[in-house]
Amino acid sequence: MFTDRLQRLQNHINEAGLGGIAVNAGPSLNYLTGLDFHLMERPVVMLFSADGEPVIILPQLEKKKLESLPYSAKVFTYGEDPAQWDDIFRRALQDVGFSHQKIGVDPRQLRLLEYNYLRFANGDIEYIDGSMVIAALRSIKDREEIDCMRKAVKIAENALEATLAIIRTGVSEKEIASELFLQLIRGGSETSLPFSPIVASGPNGANPHAKPSSRKLSSGDLLIVDWGARYGGYASDLTRTFAVGKIDSEAEEIHKTVQQANAAGRAAGRPGVSCGSVDQAARKCIADAGFGDYFTHRTGHGIGMECHEEPYIREGNEQLLEVGMAYTVEPGIYLAGRNGVRIEDDVIVTADGSESLSTMDREIRYIE
Amino acid sequence: MFTDRLQRLQNHINEAGLGGIAVNAGPSLNYLTGLDFHLMERPVVMLFSADGEPVIILPQLEKKKLESLPYSAKVFTYGEDPAQWDDIFRRALQDVGFSHQKIGVDPRQLRLLEYNYLRFANGDIEYIDGSMVIAALRSIKDREEIDCMRKAVKIAENALEATLAIIRTGVSEKEIASELFLQLIRGGSETSLPFSPIVASGPNGANPHAKPSSRKLSSGDLLIVDWGARYGGYASDLTRTFAVGKIDSEAEEIHKTVQQANAAGRAAGRPGVSCGSVDQAARKCIADAGFGDYFTHRTGHGIGMECHEEPYIREGNEQLLEVGMAYTVEPGIYLAGRNGVRIEDDVIVTADGSESLSTMDREIRYIE
Repeated sequence: MFTDRLQRLQNHINEAGLGGIAVNAGPSLNYLTGLDFHLMERPVVMLFSADGEPVIILPQLEKKKLESLPYSAKVFTYGEDPAQWDDIFRRALQDVGFSHQKIGVDPRQLRLLEYNYLRFANGDIEYIDGSMVIAALRSIKDREEIDCMRKAVKIAENALEATLAIIRTGVSEKEIASELFLQLIRGGSETSLPFSPIVASGPNGANPHAKPSSRKLSSGDLLIVDWGARYGGYASDLTRTFAVGKIDSEAEEIHKTVQQANAAGRAAGRPGVSCGSVDQAARKCIADAGFGDYFTHRTGHGIGMECHEEPYIREGNEQLLEVGMAYTVEPGIYLAGRNGVRIEDDVIVTADGSESLSTMDREIRYIE
Repeated sequence: MFTDRLQRLQNHINEAGLGGIAVNAGPSLNYLTGLDFHLMERPVVMLFSADGEPVIILPQLEKKKLESLPYSAKVFTYGEDPAQWDDIFRRALQDVGFSHQKIGVDPRQLRLLEYNYLRFANGDIEYIDGSMVIAALRSIKDREEIDCMRKAVKIAENALEATLAIIRTGVSEKEIASELFLQLIRGGSETSLPFSPIVASGPNGANPHAKPSSRKLSSGDLLIVDWGARYGGYASDLTRTFAVGKIDSEAEEIHKTVQQANAAGRAAGRPGVSCGSVDQAARKCIADAGFGDYFTHRTGHGIGMECHEEPYIREGNEQLLEVGMAYTVEPGIYLAGRNGVRIEDDVIVTADGSESLSTMDREIRYIE
């Protein structure tokens, strides 16, 4: 699998007219090598040329991890004294032998730390945005990746079902978030969740990125739960909105509207349509119902090893969907000071349409 | 507290001869503002000049978070279309009015993403390494921060004591790591642990950064547990090494040696001594016992909101310790193919020496 990814990466490097790419610690390095490094004060960088063996620069201390490297690479290690690191980077860049001087990097991953070592090592190289070279690989999920995502969705759905047992009037957002966290771990999620669950009730639901507070549920609230699991390195990211006790007709209406927008967004995805048109499909439902100004964010984002990655389902994005792409559909309506609704699913593009990995009931559910 | 931090930051900016600093999402922004942003595809950057109001650039979607900002700031928000972000950065940089063009950034935190927006917005500004300006603040912990760290240590110690109940011959490293994780959360750790616990037995212990495997404990093993908790945003990071059943005399000897090195390292810290001399104190014990070549890493690292931060306790680091600095003392001996020992404590520099926040027994403990 990794040898195949390396081969495809090198094809993409050639097609993009690059001499190579430089990848630092993070999900792309993990995707390309299986190696799991954190962003630390000690830089880890792998250099991929358009052909030939990659070169990796890493701390001596981490060298043992390379035993699991699935293909051969030239290895440059350094010790604890940063004064020596410049020299190691220079030797590694000499060794890799890029065919020409345009090297791609991912601005969302590469820090100035690594960038400065790379620039200092060879001032002739021009580092340009090569994020699409890696995104082109990572955004198309293979069967094994989809299986992991399906499992991550299932773990998340089961954890919320189990958590519903404690959700009732008088329980705080924080208490719900804690129980949900434990249910996720107990249910088999890896401990590095893609994000901390959002549990937002009543007026707190009007903030799309609310943090769980000590506010207690009371009758009339809408309750937003936005949560996910991680399995095999892959994330899920779902949202459901519940009614606590008896809610008013406006709350019922915005839930119904968002449910329609979610369905329209899910239905719009198929190979060859643009990300922007998926956004538009969901957005139109909300605008038609008169709530256009209250849907304040994009319809979704790609999901995989990262919870947010390519492709972005936003207005005007002309990128076309391809078979195997995975993204969220998560329209919402946010009424400041009153409440909010969001319904989010994880969708995979199939040969003739798209499939939602998440199937948990989207109808409003009433909690006493 | 935050107003005081802002004042001290501005003093440091002046002393360093900078026009200001630019801080992106991460622990330093959290330290300076109390705001908690993740590194995402949407950049968040705060610009601090040597005096006057700071300027913050963030997604419109996140604006609500600013309600908790403890002092006033000028706010520039942007929407979902990245094509508009350049303009927002340009306007923000015009507005902040840096007194001159040398602006400090932290290369370990700032990504090319933010750096490129900053450079594009004003090509006359020179961005230089200003990490020590912020580290000078963050590395000196106040009473409130130390209280959080003390609590994070206590939660970690209690969690390992509780986990000992399941540690015995035949149990796998992974099982121990899972139980320890749950005990940490149950005991009050925040769910974003500073790192995933390391549980490494027998020959796996010879890898300082081993991942828990399915290897089961067997008699004669040394068992390394390296774990930590998070409380109030602050990390703990501890290591203890246990004996499983009857261990050989070499294993006993290396444990005793590391225990002495840990004690020497802890004793060496006081205001005015260098980080390098603390490293040397621990390193000498191990070298004198004939194992110098098998202590393959620095003696420790600063700890606080990040698990690894300034000051670094490594050979040759002439930075002087000051009252309130916090760091780990974690000497080890690693015998490839056989076993390893590490003993790690979290230490705070006091007026007349230093204090270990962790007090859990360092003597070898035998497990059946």
